[in-house]
Amino acid sequence: MFIGAQVSLYPMTSDFVDVILSGLDALTPYRQDLRIETDDMSTLMVGAPEPLLDAIRDLFAATARRPEHVTMHVTLSRGCPGEPDDPSCHCEALVRAQDLGLDARKALALEAVAAAPVTGVEIDLQFSLYVLGQDGHMDEIYGCIDFVKGSGTYLMSKNFCTRLRGDAGAVFETLRQAFLRFGPAEGHVTIDMTASANSPSKR
Amino acid sequence: MFIGAQVSLYPMTSDFVDVILSGLDALTPYRQDLRIETDDMSTLMVGAPEPLLDAIRDLFAATARRPEHVTMHVTLSRGCPGEPDDPSCHCEALVRAQDLGLDARKALALEAVAAAPVTGVEIDLQFSLYVLGQDGHMDEIYGCIDFVKGSGTYLMSKNFCTRLRGDAGAVFETLRQAFLRFGPAEGHVTIDMTASANSPSKR
Repeated sequence: MFIGAQVSLYPMTSDFVDVILSGLDALTPYRQDLRIETDDMSTLMVGAPEPLLDAIRDLFAATARRPEHVTMHVTLSRGCPGEPDDPSCHCEALVRAQDLGLDARKALALEAVAAAPVTGVEIDLQFSLYVLGQDGHMDEIYGCIDFVKGSGTYLMSKNFCTRLRGDAGAVFETLRQAFLRFGPAEGHVTIDMTASANSPSKR
Repeated sequence: MFIGAQVSLYPMTSDFVDVILSGLDALTPYRQDLRIETDDMSTLMVGAPEPLLDAIRDLFAATARRPEHVTMHVTLSRGCPGEPDDPSCHCEALVRAQDLGLDARKALALEAVAAAPVTGVEIDLQFSLYVLGQDGHMDEIYGCIDFVKGSGTYLMSKNFCTRLRGDAGAVFETLRQAFLRFGPAEGHVTIDMTASANSPSKR
């Protein structure tokens, strides 16, 4: 299994370079568990979903604590057949999920969101979950939408994506659970997501 | 068939509101062919791939002609089973593609990129193509990667995505062809893409 993300942080300020560089400090605690490589368009992070989503959450929350409008785009992927197996991506939750039905996985996902830490940072996020390479992929997507609607972070459905709002802790836990619990445990699953904080637009 | 995109423009400047609003002027010629609705996170555009990708290209190229660093995130989708049929999304190229093999589709895609208009704006773009709800989805993805490598806009493969560079005309035509020609004509296909221009990072 290979699990990771391409992450881009977009501070809407002329000081964006400083904001990005100081935001990257939030990744320091995760550098031992994740492979992290930055180029001019995005930062690759490879590793298990536990440190991976914690790192993405902390990066965005650290930047969103500043006053400027900031957004982030993340492409998450697990199980892509074109990527090599990587032992650092081993995820017990995925292994255990092999034998669980959709309802059991929804219940575990809801428990995890209820137990999420509170960061004190309110964010908006929208995402699309893609379950690849199998028939009946929409069953898993509708199951995930059911979970999200009960998670406490659901705001609304939009064309092509689902909109969340709430504390960064609960919102990114909702995202992690959507990524982990839906679609086959050994399958190819991706998420396309954008987050936003401190927007001057009317909410 | 329902075809559209969620589009977000991110100018990395404290003047971002003005830059976004003036960028949206580039959409004026397309408002008769596309349904366009903006909220606080993204702009929904619904319609056939011809005006849809032209509008996205012109929006980004107009903003990238300014000196500031700007990025854009787009979620493209066609054929999502959860969306209603919309006659305004009718696409002759998709209808004709029904009976064509992978090699014939690659050839048509290369022709289209060679005929793309030149905008004079150099951009970077990375994208992931997702073919949903069918076995053997990786064949279509590898076919698309073959096409992209011959398109003249290919820069490099990255984990989870493919990186393009070149004139906005050729780059967005490559994206449109990837979206249209790969994956079943009546299937559910999505693209997750980010574009960048005027980055101060070393290329």
